[in-house]
Amino acid sequence: MHLSSGTWLSNVLCAVAVASEAQMPKPRTMQSHARTGQVAVIFTSQRTSQDDAGYEAAAAAMAALALQQPGYAGLESVRGGDGLGITISFWHDDAAARAWRDHPEHARIRELGRVRWYDWYELQVTRVERGYGWRRE
Amino acid sequence: MHLSSGTWLSNVLCAVAVASEAQMPKPRTMQSHARTGQVAVIFTSQRTSQDDAGYEAAAAAMAALALQQPGYAGLESVRGGDGLGITISFWHDDAAARAWRDHPEHARIRELGRVRWYDWYELQVTRVERGYGWRRE
Repeated sequence: MHLSSGTWLSNVLCAVAVASEAQMPKPRTMQSHARTGQVAVIFTSQRTSQDDAGYEAAAAAMAALALQQPGYAGLESVRGGDGLGITISFWHDDAAARAWRDHPEHARIRELGRVRWYDWYELQVTRVERGYGWRRE
Repeated sequence: MHLSSGTWLSNVLCAVAVASEAQMPKPRTMQSHARTGQVAVIFTSQRTSQDDAGYEAAAAAMAALALQQPGYAGLESVRGGDGLGITISFWHDDAAARAWRDHPEHARIRELGRVRWYDWYELQVTRVERGYGWRRE
């Protein structure tokens, strides 16, 4: 599952455009303040080998539901062939991240995840202090 | 590439063991303070379709080099079949994260990455505020 890395990409492209307008020399790495101060929730998980279809449907439904929540700021998700996955969800503030954690439908799916889809997971709630982006020209 | 998710796992297992010793009821989700206050660097990247062997060798070399740095606290990395990857490196403090950024060999490999291996990347430097873990019993 790969969801809306376009969010940061548009931020980086926007930063590049702003730099160009100002006639500044364009560094190859752009400092980006787009996410500074946001809450980034790092969810690392190991899938079981069962119920791929159910998992994929639930993951898509949760991504669509997260997108509708107040304070949502983006989602990036990768899973490797060995079933290890990392998903980052970004939120404008901690209240938004907590509200998503407590959303009843999210809680219901999380419980299904424990029963069926995950061997383990870990979650780190972090605050973004600075950011950089680079893109091939 | 999947590196040392064992670090957090041993932390969680340790937390479970401590809870058991204290004869506490064992909740299915464990709050974990193991990483609270650490710096988590989120590196999201899109691989080009070239030079897989060179990339894999460099990634393994960088993982081994990071492991030797003062303040290193762990690495988790996943790449999907579409070439999108997320790597989280954990550091005991910001000085350690900055020292790794400025390491000469790391800087050299980063420059090769821009030439050969990445279409784009983004990096967010974050601070861990709280954490949770769950593991199938």
